[in-house]
Amino acid sequence: MRTPIELKYSHRLINHGPTTLVTAAAGGATNVMAVAWVMPLDFDPPRIVAVLSESYTRELIDASGELAINVPPRSMLEATYSVGTTSGRGRDKLALHGLGTSPAGVIGAPLVDGCVAWLECRVIPEPRMREGYDLYVADVVAAWVDDSVFQDGCYQFRGDETRTIHHMARGTFFVTGPHVDLK
Amino acid sequence: MRTPIELKYSHRLINHGPTTLVTAAAGGATNVMAVAWVMPLDFDPPRIVAVLSESYTRELIDASGELAINVPPRSMLEATYSVGTTSGRGRDKLALHGLGTSPAGVIGAPLVDGCVAWLECRVIPEPRMREGYDLYVADVVAAWVDDSVFQDGCYQFRGDETRTIHHMARGTFFVTGPHVDLK
Repeated sequence: MRTPIELKYSHRLINHGPTTLVTAAAGGATNVMAVAWVMPLDFDPPRIVAVLSESYTRELIDASGELAINVPPRSMLEATYSVGTTSGRGRDKLALHGLGTSPAGVIGAPLVDGCVAWLECRVIPEPRMREGYDLYVADVVAAWVDDSVFQDGCYQFRGDETRTIHHMARGTFFVTGPHVDLK
Repeated sequence: MRTPIELKYSHRLINHGPTTLVTAAAGGATNVMAVAWVMPLDFDPPRIVAVLSESYTRELIDASGELAINVPPRSMLEATYSVGTTSGRGRDKLALHGLGTSPAGVIGAPLVDGCVAWLECRVIPEPRMREGYDLYVADVVAAWVDDSVFQDGCYQFRGDETRTIHHMARGTFFVTGPHVDLK
């Protein structure tokens, strides 16, 4: 079940470098793109930084000032890769890839069903970073986890299909592996 | 054996979001810090972006304009965590953690022995990104892999000890897991 978590723990949803699906909505249109280059930027205030190449989804992010970071599990690996190789301009890319969505809590961008964690973000306008490097900085304004996968402040994967994924290159991925606790 | 790889493939060394050791040298001093928030920024020119909090290593990076990103395997997990919890100011932090180094190919910062991949980087001065967000952008000027672990353009882990690692929070890590190839 999708459960909210405190923002101060939100960096943990992507601290291990998973590949994500980024969704955006503006003017009645929605779209999704695959984003591997995204990471936490700060704990307090909770912030992320992402490299967003020119795309239809980026246009919707620029128009709305909002984006959602969705963390897909192994069971959505094929869909994630497929999303990353097609454009949604002029068609319903989410439906095209069989991705259902649910309303977010705070922002207008939808959250992708079946993911295991979600970050709702508001862009901090940084035109020079955007123009020079395709870099976007955003505040995390809400965060959610699938409480069957993320418990007690950490991913607790049960079964391979719920594990997060890490893109390497051109359709080659790694699945998040065993947990090691030094505490 | 440490083997150079073409810069156009260098993003693959960190594309999956591993936790890294960042080394720097200036004025006869060297130091190392643990950095989880680092990712590729561009393929061509090959560039990275990292969040570097205020630290002695960052002072050496600022003084030299250079840093090395070292990717430690599972066998160095304890040392990586330990590096991330201590300062090197006024002492030899590399030696303190039993970390040997070898000269880099192009830059002055040393490369940490036992790692499985290395990126030599030159900082692009971006004072506003540094002051506002602790964000550093750098060009990759040389890249190396352990050719027993990284072959044919991808990590080919054999045995758990050579696998890369992903920090979650406070001593909790995940090890890079199984490989999935959709090609």
